[in-house]
Amino acid sequence: MIENLIVQKFGGTSVGDPERIRNVAARIKSYHDRGHKVVVVVSAMGKTTNNLISLATEVADIRPKREMDMLLATGEQVSIALLAMALHSNGVDAISFTGSQVKILTDKNFSNARIEKIDTKVLENALNRGTVCIVAGFQGVDIEDNITTLGRGGSDTSAVALAAALGAKECEIYTDVDGVYTTDPNKVPEARLMQKISYDEMLELASLGAGVLHSRSVEFGKKYNVIIHVRSSFHYSEGTRVVPEEQVMEKLLVTGVTLKNDESRISLTDIPDRPGIAAAVFEVLAKIGANVDMIVQSTGQNKLNTISFSVLRKDIDECEIALNLLLKEWGTGLMSIEKEIAIVSAVGVGMKSHGGIAAKMFNAFANEGINIEMISTSEIKISCVIEKAAGEKALKLLHKVFELEKSVT
Amino acid sequence: MIENLIVQKFGGTSVGDPERIRNVAARIKSYHDRGHKVVVVVSAMGKTTNNLISLATEVADIRPKREMDMLLATGEQVSIALLAMALHSNGVDAISFTGSQVKILTDKNFSNARIEKIDTKVLENALNRGTVCIVAGFQGVDIEDNITTLGRGGSDTSAVALAAALGAKECEIYTDVDGVYTTDPNKVPEARLMQKISYDEMLELASLGAGVLHSRSVEFGKKYNVIIHVRSSFHYSEGTRVVPEEQVMEKLLVTGVTLKNDESRISLTDIPDRPGIAAAVFEVLAKIGANVDMIVQSTGQNKLNTISFSVLRKDIDECEIALNLLLKEWGTGLMSIEKEIAIVSAVGVGMKSHGGIAAKMFNAFANEGINIEMISTSEIKISCVIEKAAGEKALKLLHKVFELEKSVT
Repeated sequence: MIENLIVQKFGGTSVGDPERIRNVAARIKSYHDRGHKVVVVVSAMGKTTNNLISLATEVADIRPKREMDMLLATGEQVSIALLAMALHSNGVDAISFTGSQVKILTDKNFSNARIEKIDTKVLENALNRGTVCIVAGFQGVDIEDNITTLGRGGSDTSAVALAAALGAKECEIYTDVDGVYTTDPNKVPEARLMQKISYDEMLELASLGAGVLHSRSVEFGKKYNVIIHVRSSFHYSEGTRVVPEEQVMEKLLVTGVTLKNDESRISLTDIPDRPGIAAAVFEVLAKIGANVDMIVQSTGQNKLNTISFSVLRKDIDECEIALNLLLKEWGTGLMSIEKEIAIVSAVGVGMKSHGGIAAKMFNAFANEGINIEMISTSEIKISCVIEKAAGEKALKLLHKVFELEKSVT
Repeated sequence: MIENLIVQKFGGTSVGDPERIRNVAARIKSYHDRGHKVVVVVSAMGKTTNNLISLATEVADIRPKREMDMLLATGEQVSIALLAMALHSNGVDAISFTGSQVKILTDKNFSNARIEKIDTKVLENALNRGTVCIVAGFQGVDIEDNITTLGRGGSDTSAVALAAALGAKECEIYTDVDGVYTTDPNKVPEARLMQKISYDEMLELASLGAGVLHSRSVEFGKKYNVIIHVRSSFHYSEGTRVVPEEQVMEKLLVTGVTLKNDESRISLTDIPDRPGIAAAVFEVLAKIGANVDMIVQSTGQNKLNTISFSVLRKDIDECEIALNLLLKEWGTGLMSIEKEIAIVSAVGVGMKSHGGIAAKMFNAFANEGINIEMISTSEIKISCVIEKAAGEKALKLLHKVFELEKSVT
């Protein structure tokens, strides 16, 4: 247990150029000077990862994941070295570590590896000497010393996992937004910054495209009771803390509302109603790498089934080709496609204990003439598919109906 | 002992862009297809290392060497990953390794580390499976798992050291020139590509600025009897083999002649003739990081000494300030500086057994009215300082006088 330990993670935008790296160093120094032991996790600078991917695409058609991880891991290695230098230039003793040096042990699942264990000895030794530790995010090492990466946004997970391994109470995730809002402030001006949100709500919001935190980092936080503080790297105001459910004072019925509008809907009707049919559909889609989101199935008349689901719009043409082959094979079934849909969702732990949320949502849509095409619910979430044109209107409506602009968490 | 093993090193120019990386992959494939086991060492792409150094300079005033090594090592890591992908795209099984993964154990002398030991197990396993091994040049790892680098041009040394450790007979160094010439072909059109040259001659030529090979790589080759084959990556012609002295068929009196013209001369006259004086001078110069090359000392009248030496012209102003302070301290001595000089040298193992080379050189200069200001000799080298304006003329003269355009090695 290290006293006064804080773990801070800075994303790619926060270290996007030399000046920003110096700003980050100044912020770290302010914590160091106040007696904190500081562990910093950084991402690759700005567009580095995308540039490396483009370079690989230019060089080779076949890009083994092991080699992609070898390539992409350099991005964070550049950031940690530069940030360590910036701290030295500020009179702060600092040392950088790659994922391999720490070591952050992962499974062998290149490009999407999971952290299995973190050896904290090398960090603890440095921290106890008063040295700031700068750790490369997004990367780890497998048992055979291969470099692995954790997938897009994986630096969040690196940071929370390090906080958990080191016994830190809080992990600060610095980003280019102020925290987590009740909805997208670009679409709804009344959107309000939340002070607190539970892990589960954050997970639903993340998977719904709120996109502030890597989902796996929230799972880690929940599992090891690490508070995740999402805040801006451009000023010193507090942001949003992702906390255990019992720490959310007032359990709001609805915490946040979200909108996704880059999806399409596919419905397969009159398909056979026998075991293995749904499996066949989603195996075909998995094989072509389509991103399937909402899935709804219901049995109709004549023992014939309907399955509807949403996929990312960019995958729709490939899905259509693959599914047509499947229907041909079955000799039955019709496919209908709606290219442009919106998925509007409401999330809140309060739903667990309160009924009536769904009815309130459906009524609000009905009163405004918004037609609901598909509904899917979880314990703390209700999602509706509507036509794309009505998306933003529906989002604003829900934000108002659930009084999100007023509530205080 | 691995049958049919070859070690190939490709420099930064050879892997300077995606197309060149694919060309290198095609060349490696041609060796692989002929049944060779191939180990490839690569440098960072083109200007990568310089760009990283500029970036560090922009970010920080204080740049600890450990962190610079962390930073610069990413350049080669990018190259190995891309080359491995290019080979896979060519249907060749390949795997990349960082210096740390191999592992290439070095001392702790960051930015200029020396290789102490290479663990060949991981490479041997891959080679025995028929996999091409791509190893990051220029970098290693110290006993505490810190990333180290071997200094500019260190990839040559990585390659020769790997060849030695793996028991390879020859190490191919691919570069953007055709091999080692009797002198700079840009300055003397009659310059001739040598088929063979001894390690010692190559060492003298390298230190004289022929600049084709990293000196330490030649020392490694000499120590472990690895033939170094310097050749072009742009075509398939053979280049120059650096070999043990006994393999150079005909021991030429002079093998090559070189010219350096980025130096200045400093002479300190009438300085005290007592122990420690020379040491004091060169300690002062070492402290300011000046690159001292030739040193000549002679005792004059009155027990007062003269020391003359050459330094890189870019260091001359700093040297002048530092030495003026020293002369003031001593209370005696005069400094004269000639900013623009040329150093012309002749190198050849034949000098060991033949006298008269120096005389031939001095006579040739005298006949052409070239004044010699300083002379320095080693067992296989004679260097003269002359005025800068006469440099190229002197170089051509020596090339002709020693009949370098005719000889066959």
